[in-house]
Amino acid sequence: MVTPSPGYAITVRLDAPAAAGSTGRLVAAVSEAGASVTALDIAESHTDRLVVDLSCDAVDANHANLITAALDALEGVHVRKVSDRTFLMHLGGKLEVVPKVPLKHRDDLSRAYTPGVARVCLAIAANPDDARRLTIKRNTVAVVTDGSAVLGLGNIGPAAALPVMEGKAALFKQFAGVDAWPVCLDTQDTEEIIKIVKAIAPVYGGVNLEDIAAPRCFEIETRLRAELDIPVFHDDQHGTAIVVLAALTNALRVVGKRLPDVRIVISGAGAAGHAIITLLQAEGARHIVACDRNGAIHRGKPDLPEAKRWIAERTNEDRFEGTLVDALAGADVFIGVSGPNLFTGKEVATMAEDAIVFALSNPDPEVDPGEAAQYATVVATGRSDYPNQINNVLAFPGFFRGMLDAGAHRITQELMVAAARAIADAVEPSALNASYIVPSVFDPNVAGAVAAAVRQGATAGDA
Amino acid sequence: MVTPSPGYAITVRLDAPAAAGSTGRLVAAVSEAGASVTALDIAESHTDRLVVDLSCDAVDANHANLITAALDALEGVHVRKVSDRTFLMHLGGKLEVVPKVPLKHRDDLSRAYTPGVARVCLAIAANPDDARRLTIKRNTVAVVTDGSAVLGLGNIGPAAALPVMEGKAALFKQFAGVDAWPVCLDTQDTEEIIKIVKAIAPVYGGVNLEDIAAPRCFEIETRLRAELDIPVFHDDQHGTAIVVLAALTNALRVVGKRLPDVRIVISGAGAAGHAIITLLQAEGARHIVACDRNGAIHRGKPDLPEAKRWIAERTNEDRFEGTLVDALAGADVFIGVSGPNLFTGKEVATMAEDAIVFALSNPDPEVDPGEAAQYATVVATGRSDYPNQINNVLAFPGFFRGMLDAGAHRITQELMVAAARAIADAVEPSALNASYIVPSVFDPNVAGAVAAAVRQGATAGDA
Repeated sequence: MVTPSPGYAITVRLDAPAAAGSTGRLVAAVSEAGASVTALDIAESHTDRLVVDLSCDAVDANHANLITAALDALEGVHVRKVSDRTFLMHLGGKLEVVPKVPLKHRDDLSRAYTPGVARVCLAIAANPDDARRLTIKRNTVAVVTDGSAVLGLGNIGPAAALPVMEGKAALFKQFAGVDAWPVCLDTQDTEEIIKIVKAIAPVYGGVNLEDIAAPRCFEIETRLRAELDIPVFHDDQHGTAIVVLAALTNALRVVGKRLPDVRIVISGAGAAGHAIITLLQAEGARHIVACDRNGAIHRGKPDLPEAKRWIAERTNEDRFEGTLVDALAGADVFIGVSGPNLFTGKEVATMAEDAIVFALSNPDPEVDPGEAAQYATVVATGRSDYPNQINNVLAFPGFFRGMLDAGAHRITQELMVAAARAIADAVEPSALNASYIVPSVFDPNVAGAVAAAVRQGATAGDA
Repeated sequence: MVTPSPGYAITVRLDAPAAAGSTGRLVAAVSEAGASVTALDIAESHTDRLVVDLSCDAVDANHANLITAALDALEGVHVRKVSDRTFLMHLGGKLEVVPKVPLKHRDDLSRAYTPGVARVCLAIAANPDDARRLTIKRNTVAVVTDGSAVLGLGNIGPAAALPVMEGKAALFKQFAGVDAWPVCLDTQDTEEIIKIVKAIAPVYGGVNLEDIAAPRCFEIETRLRAELDIPVFHDDQHGTAIVVLAALTNALRVVGKRLPDVRIVISGAGAAGHAIITLLQAEGARHIVACDRNGAIHRGKPDLPEAKRWIAERTNEDRFEGTLVDALAGADVFIGVSGPNLFTGKEVATMAEDAIVFALSNPDPEVDPGEAAQYATVVATGRSDYPNQINNVLAFPGFFRGMLDAGAHRITQELMVAAARAIADAVEPSALNASYIVPSVFDPNVAGAVAAAVRQGATAGDA
């Protein structure tokens, strides 16, 4: 499961002899240490020696040390410094706030600031809707977290969550031209979070909740949707559900099955599982069994907490009782949004013919995708180093672009279905196959297609 | 007092005959209507007619209508459309959030976002100080308002305040490279504001409070300074005090008087008056009388609210009782941070020889600066259309630049004095005269000089 990743890229600066074949020895040493050189630059050249910057992708910190030691052990080679390129990229943060207006001389200042700005303020005071026309509200989304469920890292708090929120904001801008701003809250109290998001809302045209633990996230989302007049989206729920529906739509096309007919097993009853169930059912799914670490959730189970009771009442109509592995037997579709290494290829072999396996736990999937592919027809993960990466970035930038452009705020199941269809349809029929059920995250057409579908649906719905 | 301003610039698109002298007639008509053409562009040219875009500065909306009507009344001229250039500049807001890192391909994504970002998160979780190194916190300031005292417009609320906060953020970036973000709060409850600013603080390296009404602003500032580990600055207080001290330092140089000797009358006992008194006294001022609309504040007055009691106990050692106009008689310095048109040149004539008048109420000063200049040696205002504009933009960008670079958080009177001296000293002795006591807001050296002074002082102080 462990392959070198550009997320763990290092650059080693070293002295090496100037003799012929010197750099070849470096590349060979890196290769022997289990990595590949991604760049080799001669920083300085002297008669007898070179200063070389050698970049490669490592697996982890130990592997980086191993590579460095292997280079340093070469005769005549001396490692000066090892830079971690991921940390270098984060130095000073990943966002900046830039004026869109010139401020070069007095007249600019008079218009952008005092005294001219006073008239713009008065116009908004007289007609609050003008804020969407005359301020950043028109194009700005708050990326809100309490740091309680960050990636797979858990409750690491608001400061440690900031690099993720900055990354998210960068993706918003890059993929859909949306200005997004990190709001990392130093509180994990549901009522406080609701109160704060409502208080900061005047600046924003939308709220993207991010990495907030369940079940708190449900209450926060429900209340904010009811009490704010801007769209509130919880990416871990709605973004994930949209891309899963998109991928499943195309996977079912590949195997020739229909959503209402297939038996679906979902592993994970948190925020994502919840939203996936809701959206798949909105699109016609009828046979879903959801599992948590105690096995299938069914309505006969006593003492279920509220969020799981909700699932029990809406799924598993046959009251199936058993483990996740039991549930897999004969299932058409597996969707994992839970944890690593829950089963092996052997259990995939018990699934129905032409099985579909989405093992989305990150970085380590519920099942080794290589093993799964021996028995399932379609396999997808959340990782970038396997085919069929199911990545929320396919959904959230275009989704908010569409909502902002429509000036709409109600996020309905219909809008999410429309977004999922736009993503699925971004894969041309001629390109569709078991290894290509979702478009590339760098496909320049996806965000625009999602935005158009959402804008159209939202305009119709809000009109 | 009413002169055309680029803050009220309009652009008129009109059809005019192509005959010789046609554009001359347009310029003359604008001039007769009391304005000056700032730009004249031929948008289209035809055999018999021109389409002209004519820009000029108006005084207000009525004046703009007058100018437009004058143009439309010319023979053969037809006004098509009038655009307000200040509103045009604000369309869509004045800020954008831009990624500082490339996100062009898979490897970028792996480093800036998942999976690479997880290591950066863990580094911050293990060592919270790393947030200043690896996130936007290092260079980012929150511009926080509750919309309760915006410019001279009063309590217009958070949405209508946003254009000012955007402008402020733009100035932060333009003048000192600081990334600033508007936080317009939909609450005017002191405790809520304190709680919210504390909760959002993980993202920020500093807080600039802005346009929050007194006395609430004092409590908010004091509490946040005590409870946060980042600098908290209230620009209406501290920024104003710094530029006033800078201007007064140079004005006293011009007239050859010393701060401890001069008699100072301050009009306005709000946030700015408060901070000016504190800072002038820290620098050695001994004779200050502060006035509100009821006249001189003195310790014999019964039932003073807390903020005015504070002033009474620290000023007016002679317990002078009387009106503002009474207080002016014999005073060396007048500093107005109150309201428009409180007195005339006649009262300025009663001041001491070589009087200094800072009439900073905006847009209309406490006294007509033209009249004041007939009797006082040095006159300054907050306006851009008179010499000696005392503008906070001379202080706040460099001040925060210095605090962020020092990684410091305690804002002391010493740091504010250091900033004021840096601003005053940015006027070369050879350039100093009664019409040039503060540098231009566009002087490219000011922010750097302020930042250096603050950084030096803060590093010494926090060390």
